[in-house]
Amino acid sequence: VNLTFDHISAAARRIAGVAVRTPLVECEELSRRAGGRVLVKLEGLQRGGSFKFRGAYNRLAQLTDDERTRGVVAWSSGNHAQGVALAARLLGMPATIVMPRDAPVVKTENTRALGAEIVPYDRDRESRETIATEIARTRRAVLVPSYDDYAVMAGQGTVGLEIVGQTRERSSTLDVVLVPCGGGGLTAGSAVAIKHLSAGTSIHCVEPERCNDTARSLAAGRRLANDPGSRSICDALLAPEPGALTFPINQALLSGGLTVTDEEVLEAMHFACSHLKIVVEPGGAVALAAVLANRLPLRDRVTALIVSGSNVDAPLFRSMLDRREGST
Amino acid sequence: VNLTFDHISAAARRIAGVAVRTPLVECEELSRRAGGRVLVKLEGLQRGGSFKFRGAYNRLAQLTDDERTRGVVAWSSGNHAQGVALAARLLGMPATIVMPRDAPVVKTENTRALGAEIVPYDRDRESRETIATEIARTRRAVLVPSYDDYAVMAGQGTVGLEIVGQTRERSSTLDVVLVPCGGGGLTAGSAVAIKHLSAGTSIHCVEPERCNDTARSLAAGRRLANDPGSRSICDALLAPEPGALTFPINQALLSGGLTVTDEEVLEAMHFACSHLKIVVEPGGAVALAAVLANRLPLRDRVTALIVSGSNVDAPLFRSMLDRREGST
Repeated sequence: VNLTFDHISAAARRIAGVAVRTPLVECEELSRRAGGRVLVKLEGLQRGGSFKFRGAYNRLAQLTDDERTRGVVAWSSGNHAQGVALAARLLGMPATIVMPRDAPVVKTENTRALGAEIVPYDRDRESRETIATEIARTRRAVLVPSYDDYAVMAGQGTVGLEIVGQTRERSSTLDVVLVPCGGGGLTAGSAVAIKHLSAGTSIHCVEPERCNDTARSLAAGRRLANDPGSRSICDALLAPEPGALTFPINQALLSGGLTVTDEEVLEAMHFACSHLKIVVEPGGAVALAAVLANRLPLRDRVTALIVSGSNVDAPLFRSMLDRREGST
Repeated sequence: VNLTFDHISAAARRIAGVAVRTPLVECEELSRRAGGRVLVKLEGLQRGGSFKFRGAYNRLAQLTDDERTRGVVAWSSGNHAQGVALAARLLGMPATIVMPRDAPVVKTENTRALGAEIVPYDRDRESRETIATEIARTRRAVLVPSYDDYAVMAGQGTVGLEIVGQTRERSSTLDVVLVPCGGGGLTAGSAVAIKHLSAGTSIHCVEPERCNDTARSLAAGRRLANDPGSRSICDALLAPEPGALTFPINQALLSGGLTVTDEEVLEAMHFACSHLKIVVEPGGAVALAAVLANRLPLRDRVTALIVSGSNVDAPLFRSMLDRREGST
């Protein structure tokens, strides 16, 4: 494995004072339902609205002056886009982001507001990799992958680092950690940090059904892709298959993968609004959904879960509230 | 002044690991609008949904074994109720709370779920002080005031203590702090902490119009009451007049009081949902509303504001979203 705890410690020093040390809160109602102690990492409160800022900043902060002048290129369904755009603005370099035309409006608008140039593409007909690689080539810009990159993974791993530290501040020890999983960067980075500091903690990734490539790959022992055209409301978790660099790490360190339905995700978004008092996007809510749906026995255990993003479009958010609360 | 920085430091040690060290986040959009740097203390993420848990826990943790056996009594529109109920449960003592019949449903339900006994009263026809005092007398229980108590104020002051520390972690110095104000406990406690650590910081309290007793009292140089029957959607900020113990502190340390309309509060609640990604109750949003309404020139200044509570009923929250977003 080419990602070590030292990389994550170094990333933590780089992002200190720039990224938010998001709180790890205990939710009484969630603990009651799980029958154990459940701690929730509110990473949707990160700058840019998701953990993606950590990895992007860690990557961009290591570029040379020459590379900074030429700028960066990324492809993203929206959260990595905002993370890269914000990091690029803070570090004073141009950013170009290839984004699907059906990305949530809030993600496209925020990315543009952060000063990045947006190149739209059609998710079903075009290759984002091809478009981004071509832009990087012509502009001699640096391509910043959204997960398959060790500096990016190291930045995301600071979430896991913080979780262990914040759990120790409560004089507690973690039994289980649940991590939302798309390409696997947050999962891999956090797993390296957590296993280094707390070897007895078991880590599970959580994915939407039909897009549970990592869970199926872990079970099969090799990388399996999702069916083309597989859809979920979890727009942030629609990576086609596990990353070539993230998967070996996850294979070595995870205890398995859990799967939740879109309906369970909506229920978790509503719970987050009512009990955690936060706005959560669908992809950010999958680990919470797994706990609420009792996907794993957590009785008498200490569990931490990551709520990883908050960039949800207003109409979806309101329809979620309307459906859950009827006419009250 | 009988509230010192040492009291607040001691309170911080008492609540460490029990209360959440809520994050101080920079909101890019808010900073852009203010033309300066604006940091937001997300205190609605505190246990019990508001800063009130800090003061309640600090007070209850200092009770004797004998007092704990007899339990505590409080009156509250809902946030102090939850803070006292939670602190009492954690410290193993019974709690009775006198609450107005028109308190938000979420506040009454949460207080009951935390195991407290609720005694309802009519806000316009009965005296909560009389009812609570009588209960305390017959049960030989300890009365826990919601603001006019130095141990309670010291607990609330840990919010100010954290704000200064978290601002320094960003290598920045505070010019202005804005604090939501009802009875004045959060304001007084935070002001003592902030002025001790950062004498050059100016502090303003923020209140709803028609319930701006502290702003008018500061201007007049003596305690003035609100008109009986004065109403606002800010249910948490409807104290009849400044506290006898809080006001002298606020008079000595504040630069003045700001006032916002209910309409501006709704706008701030919507901003919090869209940009801070948090649920905020009306009373918790007044300081944010003051910044958005440009009540104070903040250009090129470093400002911190407290978002102090998140306990809002679902129908009010949804109608706020519906009104702000039309049919989008």
